[in-house]
Amino acid sequence: MLINGIATELLHASDRGLQYGDGLFETIAVVDGEPQLWGAHIARLATGCEVLQLPPPDGELLLQEARQLCAASEKAILKIIITRGSGGRGYRFPETVAATRLLSVHPWPDYPRRHYQHGITAMVCDTRLASHSTLAGIKHLNRLEQVLARNEWQGSDVHEGLMLDSHGNVIEGTMSNLFIIEGDTLITPELNECGINGVMRETVLVLAAQLNITTRIESISLTRLKAASACFVTNSIIGLWPLRTLDDITYQQAKITQDLIHTLSEQRLITITT
Amino acid sequence: MLINGIATELLHASDRGLQYGDGLFETIAVVDGEPQLWGAHIARLATGCEVLQLPPPDGELLLQEARQLCAASEKAILKIIITRGSGGRGYRFPETVAATRLLSVHPWPDYPRRHYQHGITAMVCDTRLASHSTLAGIKHLNRLEQVLARNEWQGSDVHEGLMLDSHGNVIEGTMSNLFIIEGDTLITPELNECGINGVMRETVLVLAAQLNITTRIESISLTRLKAASACFVTNSIIGLWPLRTLDDITYQQAKITQDLIHTLSEQRLITITT
Repeated sequence: MLINGIATELLHASDRGLQYGDGLFETIAVVDGEPQLWGAHIARLATGCEVLQLPPPDGELLLQEARQLCAASEKAILKIIITRGSGGRGYRFPETVAATRLLSVHPWPDYPRRHYQHGITAMVCDTRLASHSTLAGIKHLNRLEQVLARNEWQGSDVHEGLMLDSHGNVIEGTMSNLFIIEGDTLITPELNECGINGVMRETVLVLAAQLNITTRIESISLTRLKAASACFVTNSIIGLWPLRTLDDITYQQAKITQDLIHTLSEQRLITITT
Repeated sequence: MLINGIATELLHASDRGLQYGDGLFETIAVVDGEPQLWGAHIARLATGCEVLQLPPPDGELLLQEARQLCAASEKAILKIIITRGSGGRGYRFPETVAATRLLSVHPWPDYPRRHYQHGITAMVCDTRLASHSTLAGIKHLNRLEQVLARNEWQGSDVHEGLMLDSHGNVIEGTMSNLFIIEGDTLITPELNECGINGVMRETVLVLAAQLNITTRIESISLTRLKAASACFVTNSIIGLWPLRTLDDITYQQAKITQDLIHTLSEQRLITITT
């Protein structure tokens, strides 16, 4: 772990990241020592900094530290946290912000091959995503909704929980974005009011366009989700998992999904190790 | 500062308080080494722990550590943070939770006497409080809304910002609860969907009943707020500040407000030092 460039795992407890969740994070796949989709991650971090009125991230410094930390890692997860640092009176920003940057490396989770080949089991969580247009899309540190949603199930029979907004539209998974397939069209929910604008979501939208798949960003009701011919979830670590079942629904495997998995694997954005 | 009973200011960066805002806090006034309204603060912390499915706080241990830390403080602020500690895979709870408890003492802010005698200047913030029935009322660590709202103004001409919910009802200040006075009745907003159930808010509701003032908990629109004959904000540190102005509105001083300030001062829950 590197905190402001120093090899330590200890952070000053006055840090506003702890005090208020006043910061952002990125979770990045590392392959052969190299962080994947780096540009997209740093771009989202920069957007988040703008929304939170934080100084923009120093992408070169972050990449240098990321490479230093991940040099020995064939497969790993890199997590970057940026906070507003310490200081300020209560919620008020410090007069001069000295942001904290924290990079840590974590073991690759080795998800099973069947998640990609046969799909996963998902459920719909009771915990809802609150609407907050300012904070929608960015990957900030206020994650209690995801924590509560993820702990609505135990054990390994369920692999992801889907979350609805206050209107009852499905937005995303606790740790992933959602896509549904209707005919030849790929649809992913709008993230104007809540949800995280995932780097893999963006990547899949671009890939789909390259594969001549029509994509749309629309609101998706639970009824529409359950009537879809297929669906899948994405994030930077898993890549893409098809849904096999959602509550009492069983989905078909779709050619679009298989084509996307194939392309993501070719680009080493999906790496199945077990 | 004490972290899990040890005098240190350094926290392990894997703590879920930093990673996800997965925890709670209390801000407590200390007078002559003794934390004020201790029972009420610990009761709210216990409610928060229940909502977040955290082990209940050990009130006796916390009080012992609080007294140890504050023994030399005539006037101070004690902050307690409880987090879910480290561990767990992503958002998932650790199988065995070892909560982190963090107590820190901070200088008393010495708010000016005129805030109590003549009232403060407030504004209405653009940042709204998102509706989240599960998390409403508890003092959790996800405080980006308050951080953004507090930084909508600079300088010392404005003393508090009021926040609306998504329906346009006024809920509370960035660091305080709100009361309005209509005739002989004291009204404070419902906190069913958002807002923090302040310890001083509860104290004022009890005091008001003892003073034979009628109290009601109701939704308060911005129009209703601006038409009120008087209003004030409360928290554990300031006690109670009347509002003198809100945007273009000037409020009268009310006898109810003066009676409450008098009673809170007698109980040493308001201590004006400058």
